[in-house]
Amino acid sequence: MPEEKEITIYDIARLLNISPTTVSRGLKDHPTINIKTRKKIAEVARQLGYRSNTFASSLRSKRTQTLGVIVPRLNSSFMSSVLAGMENAASKEGYNLIIAQSLEQADKEMENVMTMFNKRVDGLLVSLAHSSENVRHFDVFFNKKIPVIFFDRVASHPDSTSIIIDNFTAAYQVTRHLIMQGHKRIMHLGGNMLLNVYSERLRGYKQALQDHKLHFDEKLVMSGNLTEECGTDIAIQLLKLKPKDRPEAVFCANDTAAVYCMIALRNAGVNIPEDIAFAGFNNDPISRVIEPNLTTVNYPGYNMGQAAVAGLASHLNGDTNITNMNTIVLRSELIIRASSGKRK
Amino acid sequence: MPEEKEITIYDIARLLNISPTTVSRGLKDHPTINIKTRKKIAEVARQLGYRSNTFASSLRSKRTQTLGVIVPRLNSSFMSSVLAGMENAASKEGYNLIIAQSLEQADKEMENVMTMFNKRVDGLLVSLAHSSENVRHFDVFFNKKIPVIFFDRVASHPDSTSIIIDNFTAAYQVTRHLIMQGHKRIMHLGGNMLLNVYSERLRGYKQALQDHKLHFDEKLVMSGNLTEECGTDIAIQLLKLKPKDRPEAVFCANDTAAVYCMIALRNAGVNIPEDIAFAGFNNDPISRVIEPNLTTVNYPGYNMGQAAVAGLASHLNGDTNITNMNTIVLRSELIIRASSGKRK
Repeated sequence: MPEEKEITIYDIARLLNISPTTVSRGLKDHPTINIKTRKKIAEVARQLGYRSNTFASSLRSKRTQTLGVIVPRLNSSFMSSVLAGMENAASKEGYNLIIAQSLEQADKEMENVMTMFNKRVDGLLVSLAHSSENVRHFDVFFNKKIPVIFFDRVASHPDSTSIIIDNFTAAYQVTRHLIMQGHKRIMHLGGNMLLNVYSERLRGYKQALQDHKLHFDEKLVMSGNLTEECGTDIAIQLLKLKPKDRPEAVFCANDTAAVYCMIALRNAGVNIPEDIAFAGFNNDPISRVIEPNLTTVNYPGYNMGQAAVAGLASHLNGDTNITNMNTIVLRSELIIRASSGKRK
Repeated sequence: MPEEKEITIYDIARLLNISPTTVSRGLKDHPTINIKTRKKIAEVARQLGYRSNTFASSLRSKRTQTLGVIVPRLNSSFMSSVLAGMENAASKEGYNLIIAQSLEQADKEMENVMTMFNKRVDGLLVSLAHSSENVRHFDVFFNKKIPVIFFDRVASHPDSTSIIIDNFTAAYQVTRHLIMQGHKRIMHLGGNMLLNVYSERLRGYKQALQDHKLHFDEKLVMSGNLTEECGTDIAIQLLKLKPKDRPEAVFCANDTAAVYCMIALRNAGVNIPEDIAFAGFNNDPISRVIEPNLTTVNYPGYNMGQAAVAGLASHLNGDTNITNMNTIVLRSELIIRASSGKRK
């Protein structure tokens, strides 16, 4: 590639026959510089392809106006909403986002953390990988007091803030709704129970059963990676049972597993909700396309992304001290649709 | 926020009682430094929270190992696949991704371009906004010979490379398939015809009609923003027509509009494909959940993201000169499902 000489304020100054100081002030819209001169400077800067010297100014201010985002996977409906919300807030606050995915692997997450650290991000936004058993790899950030915000899949740490929904209450509401519809033998399909989101949903399910004097049967709790294949596998297992031995309702910890379980059951002639009722979690687009539409929990991914970046920006600007906040809980909402219909 | 002193190689040198030069070489795994000393240096660097001086080394190399990504919207199923593919390739090639969304607005896109320019990204990956009428705002990049790759929604420019699928042929294949199923009055619902993706799909549809001696009727071509609401609106318009005046098949330029059009028609008692057949574009998850499953085109978003970053990295490493490549066309594939079934 051809090397091009970088345009400096000296080039602009020479061309306009003014001092470099005037150019520098003009580019920063300094009020001591005549507005006509400021316009002329901006015009010449644009023509020459001048780039403000972010590196040098970063070295001075120790700030890069960049936030790091580490997520398990970029290609999920939930995560794409989160990212859209984050970008929206970052753009308003004058920050750029650097993104990386851990692919659910702890060692990839550790690598990502070091990359973000060496990139000198001003703050970090993280949803933890499945296989991350602790958060010691974030110590480089904690030690330097660079703020870290965990969202969705979080870990408790004295120096970080977590943004979550109340997974316990949301799952409690789903289970109570299924009970109110007349279902008694309710199965729960959960995810990796080492992650807060799934262990809390299981806890909400159990509590609802207990509060409604229903027996908790361990055999009715299964867990998996909640993919399309996982949903289909569960359907195959249910179909192996005699109809009278099958659960009356299934509460899945995400919509993907619920929807593909429903499709496989429906293809085998099982009626939903008459034979088995269903509820999911997330309110993904597929939950409104599956027939019957899936009862689910609206998980406000876009709002979560916005709140995380706005909180971080406000902390970095010195407006609020986010390290005083242990946890921020966003509202979620039970959405009742046809899949959880009344038992006859 | 408390200011922390940045750890330098001088701090590490003092602590280990060795020279700063030795530390610097040790951190770069220089063979002249004893392996035991290198380990000791790495250990102390980790303990103190030393960050390699990316800024200074960027100033020297004029490279930031950062690529800019500008997309219309982050929260779409297609774009999240593209991003996942980009991140995968970037991570392998040692690049970071900075992302921004134009929200389909040309002026926001211009702002994004200037931000990426000032951030000194080594290259830019762009899918154009609806309202971008030209690509003059990329001139700052072209003038400095910083590579720009357009993907999906592209514009032709002598200094940039485009990565696309063959939208003309894909649309031709969809239309021919509908014709082969016995459908004659085929409607096309397209997007913004200023964008290559939609104008090429319209052209493919027209060509297939002509090659099969079917009359092209302008009244059977509609366009919109292809959202959920757009699909529902089209259904309402179709329902206003007498059944015999309705098209026999609808080819939508994306899956979202097709699926929500199908849902509204189905709710009004229209049978698919018996009364109206459907085909979409993209192979989004919803296309496999809608009943009947939607015939569509598999758009390889993940592969497109990977190819774009791999091509850019190879160019930046000097291995290939991507500016010699005008266009890279990826394979797409017609996926036939029940929604386009045979006319009785």
